[in-house]
Amino acid sequence: MKHARVIHDGKTHLVTEAGDGRVALPDGRVLDEAQVQWLPPIEPRTLFTMAINYADHAKELAFKAPEEPLGFLKAANTVTGHRAHTVRPADAAFMHYECELAVVIGATARNVPAERAYDVVAGYTVANDYAIRDYLENWYRPNLRVKSRDTCTPLGPWFVERDDVPDPMNLNLRTLVNGRETQSGNTRDMVFGIPALIAYYSSFMTLAPGDIILTGTPDGVVNVVAGDEVVTEIEGIGRLVNTLVSDARTA
Amino acid sequence: MKHARVIHDGKTHLVTEAGDGRVALPDGRVLDEAQVQWLPPIEPRTLFTMAINYADHAKELAFKAPEEPLGFLKAANTVTGHRAHTVRPADAAFMHYECELAVVIGATARNVPAERAYDVVAGYTVANDYAIRDYLENWYRPNLRVKSRDTCTPLGPWFVERDDVPDPMNLNLRTLVNGRETQSGNTRDMVFGIPALIAYYSSFMTLAPGDIILTGTPDGVVNVVAGDEVVTEIEGIGRLVNTLVSDARTA
Repeated sequence: MKHARVIHDGKTHLVTEAGDGRVALPDGRVLDEAQVQWLPPIEPRTLFTMAINYADHAKELAFKAPEEPLGFLKAANTVTGHRAHTVRPADAAFMHYECELAVVIGATARNVPAERAYDVVAGYTVANDYAIRDYLENWYRPNLRVKSRDTCTPLGPWFVERDDVPDPMNLNLRTLVNGRETQSGNTRDMVFGIPALIAYYSSFMTLAPGDIILTGTPDGVVNVVAGDEVVTEIEGIGRLVNTLVSDARTA
Repeated sequence: MKHARVIHDGKTHLVTEAGDGRVALPDGRVLDEAQVQWLPPIEPRTLFTMAINYADHAKELAFKAPEEPLGFLKAANTVTGHRAHTVRPADAAFMHYECELAVVIGATARNVPAERAYDVVAGYTVANDYAIRDYLENWYRPNLRVKSRDTCTPLGPWFVERDDVPDPMNLNLRTLVNGRETQSGNTRDMVFGIPALIAYYSSFMTLAPGDIILTGTPDGVVNVVAGDEVVTEIEGIGRLVNTLVSDARTA
């Protein structure tokens, strides 16, 4: 089962897929996806992300793969939905997208062994974990100016329930900038897979429903600019569309 | 006006001070503070904290004062209330408290100049921003195992409205461990004061009601162990009592 949250006629609705890019409202009405305003499918409680979790991306950045997950947090202001505009600082020289599988926690979880990790997963969505590289001091836990800007974590469009994804560790993912594929990978190439990440975080803190773990991105990150349409897509999970706007236009 | 949130008879109540350490329920009943279970006065949306914001603490750690605020985030699982038990990892060699003034944001805020920063402040509470030093790789943005453990951010007991604190940049603060004063300072010694912190964060992200900014701690941090009673106290704001328990007892 997939569902999403959208605004239509000033109200928030929980919708399901109706085929051909359309959405079905609970009252039976079917709308084109452009007729609704998409919200993030889940409002995260704690939003975890990490540096360097695909070996090829580590190589791209000239780093060796880390020995333990390099986890850190993103702030609530970063989250936005499908088809949203993301603000690009006009004075930033380098901003890149990151296509990432987002794992939504569905149960209170402490000291969960890797072999039971999927028991606490509610489902999945697609994330685009943008970074403003100008302010990066080091890759191992970027600061708030790199990773916690407004609208810099599009999530969606769909929340896909766990049991509808037979093997989340074998999904193709890719990014298209203005229709051209610039990033391509498979979740099997994560350094720390979903079970290892849940085991790691829950070994020292309690996870809870609504927590979201972003699982890292493969290589192929390039600079994007205002006006670019950035599509992050994960097989079986969704196709998340985002457009960059300059903050000079919104100031 | 001061208020707090407590549980009594299985229900959550918003209470006010009734003198002599007692609390007044909205229906007029007056209870001793030990008869209620204290919740954090505010459930934070985004919880900001920072490394090294008092010059004397920087000196204590053999660092020079930073040139910009070293801000990072704490996770939702860390928050607990007055008189709570905080879990100390049994295998940690060094865990320290940090008495900090917590600034609660009351309005949506973006690009707020320092001279108007207090306009977006709702009020204040006391925080104890515990750290497990064993896992510290560097002081400039501690990782989640240092700063995002369960129950490691007691907040409270009282939320104090902004206008009841004439000069938040001139408040004595101190910590007592088992009744002995181990930390003492004044908020005037912050490297970046409240107006500068609000101007800084809001220069690149939107603050919103319920966001809480922890403002750093003066020198005098020492190791504390299971069984210790740790009282963090700020003049005019409150006296926050916390007791450490070992996770070996709660496993």
